[in-house]
Amino acid sequence: MDARDERHRARMQRKKALVDEKIAQAQDEYGLLLVHSGNGKGKSSSAFGMVARALGHGMQVGIVQFIKGAASTGEEAFFRRFPDEVRYHVMGEGFTWETQDRQRDIAKAQQAWAVARELLDDERIGLVVLDELNIALKYGYLELDRVLADIAARPLLQHVVVTGRGALPGMIEAADTVTEMNLVKHAFKAGVKAQKGVEF
Amino acid sequence: MDARDERHRARMQRKKALVDEKIAQAQDEYGLLLVHSGNGKGKSSSAFGMVARALGHGMQVGIVQFIKGAASTGEEAFFRRFPDEVRYHVMGEGFTWETQDRQRDIAKAQQAWAVARELLDDERIGLVVLDELNIALKYGYLELDRVLADIAARPLLQHVVVTGRGALPGMIEAADTVTEMNLVKHAFKAGVKAQKGVEF
Repeated sequence: MDARDERHRARMQRKKALVDEKIAQAQDEYGLLLVHSGNGKGKSSSAFGMVARALGHGMQVGIVQFIKGAASTGEEAFFRRFPDEVRYHVMGEGFTWETQDRQRDIAKAQQAWAVARELLDDERIGLVVLDELNIALKYGYLELDRVLADIAARPLLQHVVVTGRGALPGMIEAADTVTEMNLVKHAFKAGVKAQKGVEF
Repeated sequence: MDARDERHRARMQRKKALVDEKIAQAQDEYGLLLVHSGNGKGKSSSAFGMVARALGHGMQVGIVQFIKGAASTGEEAFFRRFPDEVRYHVMGEGFTWETQDRQRDIAKAQQAWAVARELLDDERIGLVVLDELNIALKYGYLELDRVLADIAARPLLQHVVVTGRGALPGMIEAADTVTEMNLVKHAFKAGVKAQKGVEF
């Protein structure tokens, strides 16, 4: 049994113990899988707030953006200031989506996942942000089962945040915490253009 | 008419123009008021993600935490690394809430608001985070009308983010964008304790 299998087994055992025994005040350290979905703002911003939090605790962070341009250029510019603490990968450039060359898009998504898998395999990284992964899954560019297996096989203490609207039921099932960001009111609808520092 | 009155008037005029004329692709720069409410996670994290975004754009940021301990110590530790770019104020220590000395709590909230008002009066600050302000308003420690008037009188290009569950209807009415973070599933309920880098 290799290290990943071993971690997967240990994770599943611990999770089972938590659920089965309904330990009310578990004192175990345990890396969480968080999902931010919904049609509102704040899915990615909230993940980036967690990056700041993790850095404040001296943790190392890995970020993979599955959709180039989906997240803020401001956040990228800021977190790239910390190359020793943050590994920042922007993937997904040039997706053709459903319109053009699906095989090419799948190949690009697989490349992005290979990068994510390296982060998910690195014990030194305390938090991995998989920004807009839900979109790549929704389009079927990545297999959910494989993605969930790789996430489950991560180091025991590593937290993972997955963002993007339209989280698949299997992703929600696997998550420890799921938050839906719902739009109540949006400035764009009143004719205000996207503003630097807020939208990008 | 002093500078604050003038800005208030200009803001109201611009807002009225936007709403009245339903300008579909307004090209104006315009500081937004964003509200993050709801019972889920991510209200404050998302605001702190926006702080990172703003810093990436070279903006200056002001933060007032109305409830000490409500936001993450990790975020505070991290953003205090940038004293030239971030003014970070943790107020609200020692609130007795409804239980004890309401007049003392109101006095503390007023002190916190005085600090917020300085940030809201500073043209150099591009983003102001008023973390958990909704809670102080809900408890009646601050007058909504006065708070909204001060927010409306801020510099035209300054963005403001207000967080906290239970946003009052008047706050939602005044906001440009409102997002409700709703809890779908939470690890705590499965007996997982709060984890460093995620919850605090």
